Amino acid sequence: MSLFQKHEPVITKAIEALHARTFFAAFAEQPSPANYGETADAEGQTKFNTQLGKKFEDLKQPKSETWGGQEESPYTQELLGVSYPLFSVNTLIENAKKAFTPWRKSSAQDRAGILTESLDRAKKRFFEIAYATMHTTGQGYMMAFQASGPHAADRALEAIAAGYEELNRFPAQAKWDKPMGKFNIQLNKEWRAVPKGISVVIGCSTFPTWNSVTGIYGSLMTGNPVIVKPHPGAILPIAIFVAEIQNVLAENNFDPNCCQLAVDTFDKMITKELAEHPDVKLIDFTGNSAFGSYLEALPGKTVFTEKTGVNSVIIDSVEDGDKAAANLAFSVNLYSGQMCTAPQNFYIPETGIGSPTGKISFDDFAQKFITQINSLANNPKAGPYVLGAVQNKKTRDRVMETEKLPGKVLLKSHAIENPQFKNARTATPVVIELEANKKEIYSKELFGPIALLIKTKNTDQSIDLAQEMAQQHGAISCGAYTTNQVVREKIADAMAMAATPVSFNLTGAIYMNQNAAFSDFHVTGGNPSGNASFTNPEYVTKRFTWVGHREPVK
Amino acid sequence: MSLFQKHEPVITKAIEALHARTFFAAFAEQPSPANYGETADAEGQTKFNTQLGKKFEDLKQPKSETWGGQEESPYTQELLGVSYPLFSVNTLIENAKKAFTPWRKSSAQDRAGILTESLDRAKKRFFEIAYATMHTTGQGYMMAFQASGPHAADRALEAIAAGYEELNRFPAQAKWDKPMGKFNIQLNKEWRAVPKGISVVIGCSTFPTWNSVTGIYGSLMTGNPVIVKPHPGAILPIAIFVAEIQNVLAENNFDPNCCQLAVDTFDKMITKELAEHPDVKLIDFTGNSAFGSYLEALPGKTVFTEKTGVNSVIIDSVEDGDKAAANLAFSVNLYSGQMCTAPQNFYIPETGIGSPTGKISFDDFAQKFITQINSLANNPKAGPYVLGAVQNKKTRDRVMETEKLPGKVLLKSHAIENPQFKNARTATPVVIELEANKKEIYSKELFGPIALLIKTKNTDQSIDLAQEMAQQHGAISCGAYTTNQVVREKIADAMAMAATPVSFNLTGAIYMNQNAAFSDFHVTGGNPSGNASFTNPEYVTKRFTWVGHREPVK
Repeated sequence: MSLFQKHEPVITKAIEALHARTFFAAFAEQPSPANYGETADAEGQTKFNTQLGKKFEDLKQPKSETWGGQEESPYTQELLGVSYPLFSVNTLIENAKKAFTPWRKSSAQDRAGILTESLDRAKKRFFEIAYATMHTTGQGYMMAFQASGPHAADRALEAIAAGYEELNRFPAQAKWDKPMGKFNIQLNKEWRAVPKGISVVIGCSTFPTWNSVTGIYGSLMTGNPVIVKPHPGAILPIAIFVAEIQNVLAENNFDPNCCQLAVDTFDKMITKELAEHPDVKLIDFTGNSAFGSYLEALPGKTVFTEKTGVNSVIIDSVEDGDKAAANLAFSVNLYSGQMCTAPQNFYIPETGIGSPTGKISFDDFAQKFITQINSLANNPKAGPYVLGAVQNKKTRDRVMETEKLPGKVLLKSHAIENPQFKNARTATPVVIELEANKKEIYSKELFGPIALLIKTKNTDQSIDLAQEMAQQHGAISCGAYTTNQVVREKIADAMAMAATPVSFNLTGAIYMNQNAAFSDFHVTGGNPSGNASFTNPEYVTKRFTWVGHREPVK
Repeated sequence: MSLFQKHEPVITKAIEALHARTFFAAFAEQPSPANYGETADAEGQTKFNTQLGKKFEDLKQPKSETWGGQEESPYTQELLGVSYPLFSVNTLIENAKKAFTPWRKSSAQDRAGILTESLDRAKKRFFEIAYATMHTTGQGYMMAFQASGPHAADRALEAIAAGYEELNRFPAQAKWDKPMGKFNIQLNKEWRAVPKGISVVIGCSTFPTWNSVTGIYGSLMTGNPVIVKPHPGAILPIAIFVAEIQNVLAENNFDPNCCQLAVDTFDKMITKELAEHPDVKLIDFTGNSAFGSYLEALPGKTVFTEKTGVNSVIIDSVEDGDKAAANLAFSVNLYSGQMCTAPQNFYIPETGIGSPTGKISFDDFAQKFITQINSLANNPKAGPYVLGAVQNKKTRDRVMETEKLPGKVLLKSHAIENPQFKNARTATPVVIELEANKKEIYSKELFGPIALLIKTKNTDQSIDLAQEMAQQHGAISCGAYTTNQVVREKIADAMAMAATPVSFNLTGAIYMNQNAAFSDFHVTGGNPSGNASFTNPEYVTKRFTWVGHREPVK
């Protein structure tokens, strides 16, 4: 049985799910023994611990010129000591060129089979990946497991499915038979999906697998060799994925260099040299807007970006003010606001928020919000695990700086103690009240656990501001609370025109930060927060070119 | 019955044809009485003649600031004297903005119905469009009818079909029901296909409808208002299409300004001002590479280009040398080489071409080619109608300049007499022999009836050169003759990697210049000849953004 035959059922289901957009997950979300076995967690943790201080030898990339690695755990604030083989850009490019031809000439079925198999192999290492993610990103255990393991694998499968579908969208051959009156012209035609060339996937420090696997699997599925350039601060989680891809490639007689890991160090970054190399045709990037915009402007490249944005919450009226405040407080606390989908600007009318029991004043809602943040962040049984740790020192510095902004500090940030990691770099959310006219302050992303409560004249102004922020500075998510259907449609239309998805009236265990594979498009591509979307058809069609040849029928 | 119901059968067939890529045409190609009625041709000619020297009053664009128009017939070398309403860029943009909201809020079905109906209306004016095309582009009667009428309408229908399919690719609503163990999270989700905004379609002087309708119908179908900016030398053919679109819009209570004609004059071109306007989000362009590349680099715009290229013919071996030469000679003569798909560089090995009767030497094949060009061009019953007239004086000058190139002039260009139009601007093909090392000469597009026979070491060098030209300078078409299956696959693969479709071994009444709607993708988007392709999925998906909203099920 071929790998394609083995995985065809799940690929077929994934394609159906892409179109139905109902719930689908191929990988179990809960890190429970029932799903992954009694010993998986402990074994993964041991494997991670054993890796510390050593060379990462799992890659099939021999002959490295040197070794390096500078990852540091936000939980221990110590170096992991893991080193990786380093290669010059020229070596990486030459390796990719050598690997390209057999890979592009393989069938879409073979590629889909190999790539899906690699996800099954990665699944056996989800716990190892989870600990690696914790100790590079600062994510809490649960998020580290889910986002870097099953959720990332679902996103990867989504890219495989979308690519497989698009590669089969047009026939490989057709007979074109044109009646000309007295005779027919008959041509045999054939169409080839031609991969664009070497693909570079540039990772970020906060979601090293979730934000990279879509580009990696999307490019590989469509026949392109991939060079994975992780953030120098978050390598190990994606290195494990790459190692498993290389294993399956080698077992199936493909060059493991179809997918290379290209590690660099903070003192000698190779990203620009890689991106600008004339043989690099595809670039995927997650990170800051300045670098993303530089990449987008490179001539002759097809570039997919997820950059930064200013995510808004429009609060008009609520069924239950405490539940709304609790939901939003969780969104701000979750991973200390270090998600690209975390809310930052909360627009609340100065006249208050409608509710079944009358108006909730601006101050009362602010108080509910702060109470909910505190009760979660300061709960020793929940706070450390929901907030995790702060990946980058600069983020904690920014939180401290925020308290000096010309607004009213409603809640100061403080460190919390993590019972497992005494040295964890932590910061609870800071909450600032601002007048709507202080646009220069809230018109940019303030990355981290920072919430700005902006006092607007009314909901119309809230909508205008949220739309303007998204159109001019980008937005990946938006939250809204309203019990009025007319207002709801006004928000839905205004934010749609700003290419920003809205989560309405969320309460309970679902948050605006979350985007589910096969159902939620992640980033729309239609505002400055990024030009690409996981996984719409363009996300894969832009990675190859349809070329048709033809010849008269003999 | 709604317009959608009326046209649903043809839209459904068009979507099927897009995927089958077998022969399909919704509009009859032959300008015969059987297809269009006994009186259609004469009436169309009368209508065209009556329009000369007058204001074009068919548009629903009142309140023009002034009138203008500078079209000149390549057949008479006299001004047509047709004038059009002129508007400032600001007026055009304000009109488009006003028309936008009702149009984007209409259903995909309503838009598909209205747009298909407009093609049916245009069909009644195909002869008028044909004469307008002859007397602006210089095309012969048959090409002017087919390219600007039925073939353009088929391409427009293709864009409607592709847009309609993509708009229905994902559901408008779905219920997302996620099992969480003890409970389920249920969200109502909805997806909106949000049009990007004002679309500007910039026409060219040689194919004023064929090259513009795909962008116009593609943008309108996906909900965007369109501003049609024709080439100042070729307005009338597309003005008639726009008038018919406006008629159907008005009849269905939409603002005719959903599709505006934006005429300018050579002395006061508005293209740059339009393209750079911040409210313009989509740009379609056909024309020279310099301007196309400038447009592609404009930040914040989605740009679709068809620019210039260097089209190659690789001649390795033939079944019948005379038939191959005749086919290629026709391709060069057709519309005096003014098609973007016309061949320019012919690579022929110095050792000659294989054939069933032995090698045909370079010189012998060159002689066959020249003989075939002459016998067609100098035949008074065929030449004037196949060659048509030269649209632009500069093209004729270029042909004359070509004779001074440092190569061997095998055939000089000369004027031919057109029995109907004594003043027609005509030029037969010039044929130059060049050594393969004269790359600086043949590495650029020499637009017009110019054929360069390039003497290569062997077919491998021919393939390398054809690939290099396409990759570095762009190519829209490629011809190849070989009877060897190994060589055939080598060419097919090399040119596929240069994103160039190859027509193999064409003889008889089918030419490498021709691209059929629903079957041949026109331009691939994968080399410097253009970044877009008629009509692949990206051609329509890039005109809108998928945005998903969600809310808990109550």
